[in-house]
Amino acid sequence: MRIEIVDVGPRDGLQNEAEILAPETRAELCDRLAAAGLPRVEAASFVNPKRVPQMAGAEEVMRGLHRREGTVYAGLVLNEKGYERAVEAGVDEVRYAFPVTETFAKKNQNTTVADATALAERLVERARLDGVRVSITLSAAFGDPFEGAVEPGHVLGIAGRVAEAQPDEIVLADTIGVGVPLQVRELVRGAAAHGVTVGCHFHDTRNTGIANAVAAVESGATVLDASVGGTGGCPFAPQATGNVATEDLVYLLHGMGYETGVDLKALVEVARWLSGKLGKELPGQVYKAGVFEPVAG
Amino acid sequence: MRIEIVDVGPRDGLQNEAEILAPETRAELCDRLAAAGLPRVEAASFVNPKRVPQMAGAEEVMRGLHRREGTVYAGLVLNEKGYERAVEAGVDEVRYAFPVTETFAKKNQNTTVADATALAERLVERARLDGVRVSITLSAAFGDPFEGAVEPGHVLGIAGRVAEAQPDEIVLADTIGVGVPLQVRELVRGAAAHGVTVGCHFHDTRNTGIANAVAAVESGATVLDASVGGTGGCPFAPQATGNVATEDLVYLLHGMGYETGVDLKALVEVARWLSGKLGKELPGQVYKAGVFEPVAG
Repeated sequence: MRIEIVDVGPRDGLQNEAEILAPETRAELCDRLAAAGLPRVEAASFVNPKRVPQMAGAEEVMRGLHRREGTVYAGLVLNEKGYERAVEAGVDEVRYAFPVTETFAKKNQNTTVADATALAERLVERARLDGVRVSITLSAAFGDPFEGAVEPGHVLGIAGRVAEAQPDEIVLADTIGVGVPLQVRELVRGAAAHGVTVGCHFHDTRNTGIANAVAAVESGATVLDASVGGTGGCPFAPQATGNVATEDLVYLLHGMGYETGVDLKALVEVARWLSGKLGKELPGQVYKAGVFEPVAG
Repeated sequence: MRIEIVDVGPRDGLQNEAEILAPETRAELCDRLAAAGLPRVEAASFVNPKRVPQMAGAEEVMRGLHRREGTVYAGLVLNEKGYERAVEAGVDEVRYAFPVTETFAKKNQNTTVADATALAERLVERARLDGVRVSITLSAAFGDPFEGAVEPGHVLGIAGRVAEAQPDEIVLADTIGVGVPLQVRELVRGAAAHGVTVGCHFHDTRNTGIANAVAAVESGATVLDASVGGTGGCPFAPQATGNVATEDLVYLLHGMGYETGVDLKALVEVARWLSGKLGKELPGQVYKAGVFEPVAG
């Protein structure tokens, strides 16, 4: 079975790093990821650069890409203006994310859950007219940095509304890395029951990211976000450390018999290269420990 | 359902740390773990202190304990002499470990798999006569640092022979941290089919430790080794970094609805204390990120 991995390293990975990489370096990161076989890359974030200086120059990143045939280059947007910038800049896919809780929606995007859901529906419609793919992420779906536990029924209610608009996929995001496999199974099955492609986005803050990924793919998710080297976080969510490292996820998935299209050894080289660019060791483990063929036969 | 966690931090955790802790500090670590509710602690290693200087003074560790009613204090042994020292020192449980591959058996214990298996049978018998618990660990059961992949059928054949001797449990160890849940399920189910209590011992070298723990308990394992703070490794196995962090495992298990008897917040304090004693940040994630109640309701 095939799982599509979206490397969000150039966006979610880098947006919380102290070291700011120039747009041309971020474009080069995308090129390297595409060359390693990543089918989709979240190349840039069309947010206000005053709020997230690491993501300034989204248009330059897009212009700097050496686009690879078959690779999907996505851009994150948090509002309609961002959507317009992203489409103008030539993304293949718009990824619109909004929190499922009121406090986080207010703090992160100065909106309400109802307004954000309505915007999701509108952006799906606009994307269809504009001929770009559209992915909708439900942030803080497994727990909220301010409100604590989040009811699965609440998340699935929002997922149902979004699913009716028929986006290319719905991504359930554990923004602060608190989820456990039991939750993952309930949310993924519930979302998939709406007849939509389901993705998951895990942060490895409490070491549950890989276990959650296993639960996700075994419950029907076919898309997983990850970040090369395990960089990343969320600048507005306290303690939200890195995304699941893409190479750790690929190691796991290949060992479990899933296909990803990714060349793991090439990806490990990208992690090493990024580690050099950021001037520090990254949280990913496989790039440090080395690749191994775990299953006999 | 209840899962019994064995904290192997005082042994497997500390044996690969550059900083050597005095026996009284290791005894204090055991006391702190017992006070946090750990039902079993691997307190000491009865190996040659010339080979593993971190573990020198096993008898002093045992003497230094303030034994807590109901807590099981175990000692690791790699041969018959170690067994005799451990029983003499007053352990409640002897844990005998041997590799399932010839190269590792030779390098780690200067033995063969056949001889090591025969010794397991003999030690189970001696332990019964001596009135101590006995646990048998099959090392490198998921992959070998020298030989690579290990056939599950080979591991299960050894497990079957050991099971016939009726130890208190058989522990399947991923000594170099290469396993994936697919293997875990096959090995745990296969070992449990021999009618023995099955434990697992995972290293988090490639970020699969927690995912493997989920697979283990859902396949019938009822005992899990872990190391507070995620310290540890194996001095003779290249790249075998830390055990799964006990607090990360407890976070996961409680979130999944399992009982462990462990007070997670108290355990997090033990990890912080140990981090101070070792003078470094430890790999465990929950003690840094903080506890959260992930499931709504």
